[in-house]
Amino acid sequence: MAEKITPRTEDFSQWYQDVVLQAKLADHSPVKGCMVIRPNGYSIWERIQQEMNQRIKDSGVRNAYFPMFIPESFIKKEADHVEGFAPQVAVVTYAGGKDLDEKLVVRPTSETIINSMFAKWVQSYRDLPLLINQWANVVRWEMRTRLFLRTTEFLWQEGHTCHATLEESEAFTQKMLQVYHEFSENVLAMPVISGMKSEAEKFAGALRTYCIEAMMQDGKALQAGTSHNLSDHFAKAFDTMFLDKDGKQKHVFQTSWGVSTRLIGGLIMTHSDDKGLVLPPKIAETHVVIVPIVPKANLAPAVYEAADKLAKDIAAAASVKGLPYRVGIQVDKDDTKQAGWKFHEYELIGIPVRIELGPRDIEKGQCVFTRRDKGQKEFIPLSEVPNKIGVELEQMQNELLAKARAHRDANIHEVNDYETFKKTLEEKGGFYRVPWGLDRAAEEQIKEETKATLRCILLDENHQPIAANRPCFKTGKTDGTVMAIFARSY
Amino acid sequence: MAEKITPRTEDFSQWYQDVVLQAKLADHSPVKGCMVIRPNGYSIWERIQQEMNQRIKDSGVRNAYFPMFIPESFIKKEADHVEGFAPQVAVVTYAGGKDLDEKLVVRPTSETIINSMFAKWVQSYRDLPLLINQWANVVRWEMRTRLFLRTTEFLWQEGHTCHATLEESEAFTQKMLQVYHEFSENVLAMPVISGMKSEAEKFAGALRTYCIEAMMQDGKALQAGTSHNLSDHFAKAFDTMFLDKDGKQKHVFQTSWGVSTRLIGGLIMTHSDDKGLVLPPKIAETHVVIVPIVPKANLAPAVYEAADKLAKDIAAAASVKGLPYRVGIQVDKDDTKQAGWKFHEYELIGIPVRIELGPRDIEKGQCVFTRRDKGQKEFIPLSEVPNKIGVELEQMQNELLAKARAHRDANIHEVNDYETFKKTLEEKGGFYRVPWGLDRAAEEQIKEETKATLRCILLDENHQPIAANRPCFKTGKTDGTVMAIFARSY
Repeated sequence: MAEKITPRTEDFSQWYQDVVLQAKLADHSPVKGCMVIRPNGYSIWERIQQEMNQRIKDSGVRNAYFPMFIPESFIKKEADHVEGFAPQVAVVTYAGGKDLDEKLVVRPTSETIINSMFAKWVQSYRDLPLLINQWANVVRWEMRTRLFLRTTEFLWQEGHTCHATLEESEAFTQKMLQVYHEFSENVLAMPVISGMKSEAEKFAGALRTYCIEAMMQDGKALQAGTSHNLSDHFAKAFDTMFLDKDGKQKHVFQTSWGVSTRLIGGLIMTHSDDKGLVLPPKIAETHVVIVPIVPKANLAPAVYEAADKLAKDIAAAASVKGLPYRVGIQVDKDDTKQAGWKFHEYELIGIPVRIELGPRDIEKGQCVFTRRDKGQKEFIPLSEVPNKIGVELEQMQNELLAKARAHRDANIHEVNDYETFKKTLEEKGGFYRVPWGLDRAAEEQIKEETKATLRCILLDENHQPIAANRPCFKTGKTDGTVMAIFARSY
Repeated sequence: MAEKITPRTEDFSQWYQDVVLQAKLADHSPVKGCMVIRPNGYSIWERIQQEMNQRIKDSGVRNAYFPMFIPESFIKKEADHVEGFAPQVAVVTYAGGKDLDEKLVVRPTSETIINSMFAKWVQSYRDLPLLINQWANVVRWEMRTRLFLRTTEFLWQEGHTCHATLEESEAFTQKMLQVYHEFSENVLAMPVISGMKSEAEKFAGALRTYCIEAMMQDGKALQAGTSHNLSDHFAKAFDTMFLDKDGKQKHVFQTSWGVSTRLIGGLIMTHSDDKGLVLPPKIAETHVVIVPIVPKANLAPAVYEAADKLAKDIAAAASVKGLPYRVGIQVDKDDTKQAGWKFHEYELIGIPVRIELGPRDIEKGQCVFTRRDKGQKEFIPLSEVPNKIGVELEQMQNELLAKARAHRDANIHEVNDYETFKKTLEEKGGFYRVPWGLDRAAEEQIKEETKATLRCILLDENHQPIAANRPCFKTGKTDGTVMAIFARSY
């Protein structure tokens, strides 16, 4: 018997865990805080990799691979970096049966080890820009972990680039932020707000950190990707220099940017429902499952034959618009399981379209067609199904984005004073668009009092903070306030 | 100025390192024994992944991801396994600022951590076969390392499967060996000999290990992939059991199998030459480079236009036979480099086809066409180039395999006595096909005296050792001798 998924209204956090475990997306491992990504979850990661990789390569970036062990001394070379990451690292102290002369940190991020190579590879302005990405596992020792959202080990891509000027590194930082924004909305159907992190929340070692923030169904924020302008901070720590056209040795200006398996958690909390996973078609491995209905065993051959023919017709006609891969179709001929069990299972694991096909349907030349996000059964002539699949998958992709965007927009509150903010946050959750005075102490106090954090400072089309022209909602300070988003977050 | 590559005849080992470093395939890192895989090398790994992944999925296997940290106690559960791997492991002893209660081993391979999950997931015969693969980094502390061939950290895929019977696990072990064999020859153009490892050389914890062995240009062997029948050894250590149809609880029978970034080293030592890398087209990212020859700057626009048109025509016409991706074409318009420098560079990094196109060529409607493996310039009418590309790439792929196979076959020596073996090995190197009495002490002695190891026991079409019907070449033992390959190896 299938387990029951806790309804979202009852306990959102338990609902999330139920979906992840029951849809077999991930599992807890015997190693504290580390997850196992099961095939249903890993197939989502493979699609994310495929789509993101194409965008990264289209941006002129090439993939490489750097060691996961970092000499402890490297981590200490950039002052902010060590302060930010030292408490979180896992350390190898012996190997090959001996204590190591220098301890090795398991990478929490790779700016330091990569700079040690960049310093060797970059010689002249002709070597710039140098645009590198790696797909890798990283480790950050976390106290409280949650499958996909925050785990001790996770998978990600981390881009690292070198440029001749600060302007170029700033432009590339923003370019990759835009790639993340477009990817989140067009592939994951997950609307995001782009912005800039505060000094308190920026990456340890960066000049500036940009981010995309998504709203989950419970109104909390999820940081879904970050892009950092590192300026020459790491270049100075590692002497990453180039001979410029003017004959002078200069430090390079750098960027780094990443998205991780956390995106899978974001996907789930954006689209899924009380029956289980809802997957945007662009990220699904199997798009259509055909369930043959066999009331008597002797009818099986005819029903299976019709189901196979339908699968073949769909394969010949349908594509996922805008993506280079084919529609994934499965015909479920497992006769040890009841149709009802199968319907439940395919809803749970989020197959976008389910088709039921029995002897009477075949007589009438029709089938029962159900889209996962709508859940309503329709009778559709078999001849119309192949073309309908492509249309419905595209509609589903668009409607999931529209639905998530409507939910998000309905839960962004404009407030101008702290009392209203606190009261509304407690009652309704969601995002708060506020005038903000950039005061670090006030930011800390808000976090302590409400558990809400500054998600991002909003930017105009020139990537400059949007002036609020109103007093700060917290301090009342009037000069130089900017528009910002506060929210509780994952 | 470009550095000089040491000729193979002078110093094969130095030649290999020169090619790897100068073609920017990999670099030494500041961490002992760990390499950096640079973009030129990583693009080869991406093609290997793409092709191998398709074959793995076609075998019914799904990808997943397991933690890289393994509790130290897990490694100790299987007696042979701990004996084999304990001396090689790297160990995390503190993390998050605290000493760990249980030390964590960085995975040298994942049978143990995966079995801890399989034991939870497998309940009934209905859950079998369970077929899982992961792409991951692993760490084995090595004393003597060499880029790609033997590094402390390397990238690989490791498949792990559970079956109801020993017969099924044996069949799957052989199936994946066959996948590796076919992949090596058809994609890497690297001929291999399939066989079985001796008791001394088998995987720590396996019942039997099968392998594919390739011969490098210097006559030494490279183990290019292994497939293990684990029997119920790990299942017993981890209580991985299922309820069979007969109502009884039974241990599962398992397999594991892997190939790694070592394949890139094998590729290099199979095909490359004194000018640098030679890449089989199926594994190349860029297949064709067009070098516009611009004797005067004012001629550049016309030459570039013709080069772009040719690139477009090639893109429209050519495909790499049998592969789902397009021909990669690059037009090199960098005017800061001389044509001669470019020719040298593209030979070094192994672009399969180079086309030179200058103003006089354009007048005559021709270009200069050079295949990397042949190195001879041909004048070819521009109109013929697009179709010629596909034909030549296919021929090059086939000819590289044929050439490597001819070299391999010419260097397999049949010997029946130890003295001839020692003498010929010293003079000619290569592989030795010998009658072998399966004596472990003799195997050890051969290794000590000649540095040659038993690469594999040869198998017939029923996967049984081929009977030699002759006395063992070393001990003279007459009963039950089998045919085996001995060679020095990487």
